[in-house]
Amino acid sequence: MPKAADRYLQVDPWAVIEEGFDPARSRVSESIFSLSNEYMGVRGYAEEGYGGDTLLGSYFNGLFEQMELAAHYKGIIRSLRYMVNSVDWLYTRLTVDGETLDLSKSKFTDYRRKLDFRTGLYTREFTWHTNSGKILKLRFERLVSMTRAQVGGQRITLVPVNFSGKVQLRTGLDFSILHEDQGKNLWRVIRKTPGSAQGLAGSLLGATLTTGNRLYSAFAVHSDQIANAVPEEEEKYIGLALELQLEQGKEAVFDKLVSNVTDKQTGRSDEEVWTSGSEAADALNSLTLDELMEEQRTYWAHVWETSDIQIEGDPDNQQGIRFCIFQLVQTYHGDHPGFNIGAKGLTGEAYRGLAFWDTESYCLPFYIFNNPKAAKSLLEFRYQSLPQALERAKEVDCEGAFYPIATIDGTESCDLWQHSNLQLHVGTAIAYGLWHYEKIVGDKPFLYEKGAEMLLQISRFYRTRGQWGQKSGQFGYYGVMGPDEFQLMVNNNAYTNYMAKKLFEYTLEVAEEMKREVPQQWAELAERLGLQEEELSEWRRLADHMKIPKDDSTGVYEEHDGFFDMPHIEIQDIPVTDFPLYSNWSYDRIYRYDMIKQPDVLMFLLLHNQSFSLEEKRANYEFYEPKTIHESSLSPSVHSILAAEIGRHEEAYKFFEFATRLDLDNYNRNTREGLHTTSIAAAWMNIVYGFGGMRSDGPELLFQPTIPEPWSSYSFRITYRDTVIAVQVTKDEVRMQALEGEAVTVQVYGHSCRVDAAGVTVALKSGQPA
Amino acid sequence: MPKAADRYLQVDPWAVIEEGFDPARSRVSESIFSLSNEYMGVRGYAEEGYGGDTLLGSYFNGLFEQMELAAHYKGIIRSLRYMVNSVDWLYTRLTVDGETLDLSKSKFTDYRRKLDFRTGLYTREFTWHTNSGKILKLRFERLVSMTRAQVGGQRITLVPVNFSGKVQLRTGLDFSILHEDQGKNLWRVIRKTPGSAQGLAGSLLGATLTTGNRLYSAFAVHSDQIANAVPEEEEKYIGLALELQLEQGKEAVFDKLVSNVTDKQTGRSDEEVWTSGSEAADALNSLTLDELMEEQRTYWAHVWETSDIQIEGDPDNQQGIRFCIFQLVQTYHGDHPGFNIGAKGLTGEAYRGLAFWDTESYCLPFYIFNNPKAAKSLLEFRYQSLPQALERAKEVDCEGAFYPIATIDGTESCDLWQHSNLQLHVGTAIAYGLWHYEKIVGDKPFLYEKGAEMLLQISRFYRTRGQWGQKSGQFGYYGVMGPDEFQLMVNNNAYTNYMAKKLFEYTLEVAEEMKREVPQQWAELAERLGLQEEELSEWRRLADHMKIPKDDSTGVYEEHDGFFDMPHIEIQDIPVTDFPLYSNWSYDRIYRYDMIKQPDVLMFLLLHNQSFSLEEKRANYEFYEPKTIHESSLSPSVHSILAAEIGRHEEAYKFFEFATRLDLDNYNRNTREGLHTTSIAAAWMNIVYGFGGMRSDGPELLFQPTIPEPWSSYSFRITYRDTVIAVQVTKDEVRMQALEGEAVTVQVYGHSCRVDAAGVTVALKSGQPA
Repeated sequence: MPKAADRYLQVDPWAVIEEGFDPARSRVSESIFSLSNEYMGVRGYAEEGYGGDTLLGSYFNGLFEQMELAAHYKGIIRSLRYMVNSVDWLYTRLTVDGETLDLSKSKFTDYRRKLDFRTGLYTREFTWHTNSGKILKLRFERLVSMTRAQVGGQRITLVPVNFSGKVQLRTGLDFSILHEDQGKNLWRVIRKTPGSAQGLAGSLLGATLTTGNRLYSAFAVHSDQIANAVPEEEEKYIGLALELQLEQGKEAVFDKLVSNVTDKQTGRSDEEVWTSGSEAADALNSLTLDELMEEQRTYWAHVWETSDIQIEGDPDNQQGIRFCIFQLVQTYHGDHPGFNIGAKGLTGEAYRGLAFWDTESYCLPFYIFNNPKAAKSLLEFRYQSLPQALERAKEVDCEGAFYPIATIDGTESCDLWQHSNLQLHVGTAIAYGLWHYEKIVGDKPFLYEKGAEMLLQISRFYRTRGQWGQKSGQFGYYGVMGPDEFQLMVNNNAYTNYMAKKLFEYTLEVAEEMKREVPQQWAELAERLGLQEEELSEWRRLADHMKIPKDDSTGVYEEHDGFFDMPHIEIQDIPVTDFPLYSNWSYDRIYRYDMIKQPDVLMFLLLHNQSFSLEEKRANYEFYEPKTIHESSLSPSVHSILAAEIGRHEEAYKFFEFATRLDLDNYNRNTREGLHTTSIAAAWMNIVYGFGGMRSDGPELLFQPTIPEPWSSYSFRITYRDTVIAVQVTKDEVRMQALEGEAVTVQVYGHSCRVDAAGVTVALKSGQPA
Repeated sequence: MPKAADRYLQVDPWAVIEEGFDPARSRVSESIFSLSNEYMGVRGYAEEGYGGDTLLGSYFNGLFEQMELAAHYKGIIRSLRYMVNSVDWLYTRLTVDGETLDLSKSKFTDYRRKLDFRTGLYTREFTWHTNSGKILKLRFERLVSMTRAQVGGQRITLVPVNFSGKVQLRTGLDFSILHEDQGKNLWRVIRKTPGSAQGLAGSLLGATLTTGNRLYSAFAVHSDQIANAVPEEEEKYIGLALELQLEQGKEAVFDKLVSNVTDKQTGRSDEEVWTSGSEAADALNSLTLDELMEEQRTYWAHVWETSDIQIEGDPDNQQGIRFCIFQLVQTYHGDHPGFNIGAKGLTGEAYRGLAFWDTESYCLPFYIFNNPKAAKSLLEFRYQSLPQALERAKEVDCEGAFYPIATIDGTESCDLWQHSNLQLHVGTAIAYGLWHYEKIVGDKPFLYEKGAEMLLQISRFYRTRGQWGQKSGQFGYYGVMGPDEFQLMVNNNAYTNYMAKKLFEYTLEVAEEMKREVPQQWAELAERLGLQEEELSEWRRLADHMKIPKDDSTGVYEEHDGFFDMPHIEIQDIPVTDFPLYSNWSYDRIYRYDMIKQPDVLMFLLLHNQSFSLEEKRANYEFYEPKTIHESSLSPSVHSILAAEIGRHEEAYKFFEFATRLDLDNYNRNTREGLHTTSIAAAWMNIVYGFGGMRSDGPELLFQPTIPEPWSSYSFRITYRDTVIAVQVTKDEVRMQALEGEAVTVQVYGHSCRVDAAGVTVALKSGQPA
């Protein structure tokens, strides 16, 4: 893996801190200092305006525009949807003696910014030396509320060092910002009204140009120093121009609160959207930023209580893992059933704001064990978009539900047909997610009401998309791309086939269970879907005859038909300058080697871990690991977890290092485009499943903890059937304790352990695997 | 094959005749009545203007525009070039009493048009009944000169039936016509000058908008009836408005001659192009249309003398095969070394005027055996575009020459990466063409001067694009699409591998021969190309270790690794309404069956026919034929030829029927877009290789004639090493005679026969194969 850290931030256990301003790293920092609250997100850009390299990004979950495509053939999508860059609700301009602050031109000192994991506040501070000789200390603080999803807040604190007098401030809501990828603004304004200098200061209703998604924004300001406030209006802007009266050495505070309400093609009239937006905005009248800050602190205190990971002896990774947990929680926490997580969260335009199978495969475990409500909400997204998946299946001449490989609202939005038509593994990832969620959380109502319907429709798709091998007499998938995207179009991809087999088996298990436990509900569902008993027996036959290519003499699963004959390449011999291969190799060349992009066989060995022997895992790891390029940010963690399991502890630690600090140290050199939000979830898995040795795919939770050599101890917390379990691992022992909830039984090193409030301690087994 | 004839033309042995005008078939007829002379081509549109469905198409060989593409990845082309619709040099408007003739509005009777294979003339005639009650008989004739490539001629003959008086005529050169696929005109005018009513009547120099290809056009008119001629000019038009004085019952004749000179990015100044165009146009002053017509008759008489095919007892196919020969000769005859043949010749915009491997694989044999100069010219095209092929190889990270799958000027112009990056078989088709050409024509100088260089560079490409199978230990091609485009991305396509093996072997053979025969020339070539002896021995090693997948127990070659396991589909069970599959099946679905689009294994069994036993051919035919959809117009003929060889005579005749009348009966329902010019060549192969049983891939020419049941006799003529051989096959015997040139020895039914001027007769062996 030709990856190297680019360290420039301060190491701190509870914050990200940047000292000094580096224009070349401006966009990287903007990504890292992003804030979000699931409903909306905003990059860490300079709200006062910045003439240098910046991506002024402000996003709302699921708010999309549409692009038409010149599709050649049937079954290839003809349009795609993407997250649209929206309102700059932090818009601010600060002018002293005719000079407007802009860090690309102005003189300043003592620049420092900080993202605090315990307060959820992003703070920037510096001292401005104006051309007229004035010295003004400035602090910009902002938050997006975790408790009031539509509300964001901004505080500007000003201390004039060597003068008294006024500064000019312009503040407002700017709907004219560019969507960078499209090179244009994607909003039209439906209505706007100015306000007053105290209380509501202006509101605006905008709509996306082609899709008519709407966004109502309003803002209020508060400061004791405001004078001469004048409303301002431009075509796509509403704001206030005002003066702040400053007194030398005294702190002046200016607060701005905003309320943003989205409307995603609900069919409501503009009038209705305006009215409900206005009603929500009324809350700003009685709210203060101090209150919001206090709520935010409380919220985060609770998060760390139930979800913190502590690492003793490794400050870098301590900071890294908390950054990951902070991002996961702020990006998604399940307050809005049916939202999803884009590959970059709400931190940039890259990947167009689209969600992939990462959601179920990498993020879901974190939420299952930390916030089951969020896990359920993610599955709910798939249920809500079942109609689009049914439609998509028809487009590709199949039945049932074909879930999109990339989507913002449930419609397929990947414009590369080779991915959107050949990658089938979102459906099985959803089925696995349902299975995993139900196993750990025990949420039968959701399974029966919504999960089962998805399982049945996904199984229908997998039946109609699969085929029988003429020579093998076995069932499987032809013309597919598995998780390993370096094998573009293959037959009988082992991952796809194996997961399809498990899908059919789980669907049948749920069907049996519903017939037994909720016969009426089952009967209604079966009737609604026109389900025939023959379909069930057909799925059984397919599961029983699924082709899982394997070399029995070595125990190695063949990634797809013919993989073992693929021409060999020594990946260590590929020059570092050839990476990323997508940019430097001819497109077709990438797909002709025994070189893989990310785990494929190893992926199902991890997901269904307990179905495979240690010897099988070792054989497959040893076969595939040297062939893996890890040209996906999701890849190293899977290797790390399996390496830990088979006793390759140094390798496990090596792969782990990329995960926690992937963005903080910009390992992939593309953090400027946004955070690797979904990959971040793998960092959590790395510790809990990797070093903690947790396995959750069997009847009981298992733990097989080890401790990396550089660490003196580490601990993590998980929620398992309403019980919060704290696990602490030192060099000598493993201690487990139920912090909240009833006692539960788990297995540690193969022995049953009752974990209760008093806790239980087991000697650490280090070194070799069980 | 769900194909059915749509017969509406008259059957005639020497012409295509349409009686009555069918607006719904307007475009089909425009294609069928196309004229061309290799240099330029013009569809059979109504030159007087037509308000109904028409594609006014006028094309010049190799004159192109360029389109930029939004390419995603390295190695995928970023622009493409296509044949541009050019000047309407037939532009005519005829007005009587204020009514302008337009067959979509005017009243007319006795409509008839004819394309005469012996005169090369396209004639349209009808009687116009004007709204004012006048009756005017009209005949429009046109030709493009086979002897003077830049010259075209038009004659309008008018007979006023019930009046004397004048008609208004506008005539000129119109550069404003639309390129339909782009929906716009692609020309700008550099310069234009009006002329006079006798002699040169106007000239115009145009250039394509983005590529700057230039076209100089001039016209002259002649008629004894011209009066009141006035020059006319519009932005992209130059012409004359004039009156013709008509006398009741008397024939009036108006002639127009044009001279069109193209300049394809030669770097010459506009002034130089104008001057040389003007000089060429001077010839129009001393030329008459009668002379041109006479030259044209002489030209075609000679063609039929050396290339005619006669069929007794089958007027439909008699007409069909002559139509094919007429099209092949008028489209290409090698007067301009380095021209190529677009898939639709010069008869429409479809396939963008691009040339494919059809040129070498389907057309070349016709020219080799009828007009070796034309065959050489086609190979010359590839030599001239060697620089682009070298460049393209680099783009895909290879060495040597990667010839384009679709091109107008040598640059790859197929915008589907899966075809342009995965289809490798143009290079081997060129090598095969060189081999075949040299074997039959014996042109060693061309082989040594140009052919060898191509072979060496193509071999370099095939070395660097190929890889070693890790398990098989054999060499082959991974990630390719063979001729069968229903298997999109496969490993070790048997055709690709087999033809690569033959390529290496032939290249080495030529290298040995040159070392022996022309050592100095070889040394210079090797030095110029930096050729190392090790390269030659490496090619030997690759040829010796080439993987040719085959089931030895059945003798069936496996189309690619894993083909025998591809899911089976009964192609007879596919509903007729599903065709063409590209339009009605999801794109990805097409590629998941043991269903093939066109011959792949059978193709190399045909090309290297004598390298395979009859049993092998039978086994492979019987295996692949029932799996073949023939969703390529090139497909049935290959099956027909092999069916004849293995004694399936009825099947051979069934497949043959599509070939000769493919366009006349619009079998594929898309003749409106243009003729299947390259497929037409397969009709010739069908008779000569199929029923004639000729084989030309061994040391001697072989013949194994059979005669289809419905025929009483047939004959064909071929040129073999300067000797014109006439072959006549009756129900009882085969007669061969040398019409021109020295006696030659061939094999008939496995016995040597000396064919001289006196001729030789052999009893027909019918029924079973040898």
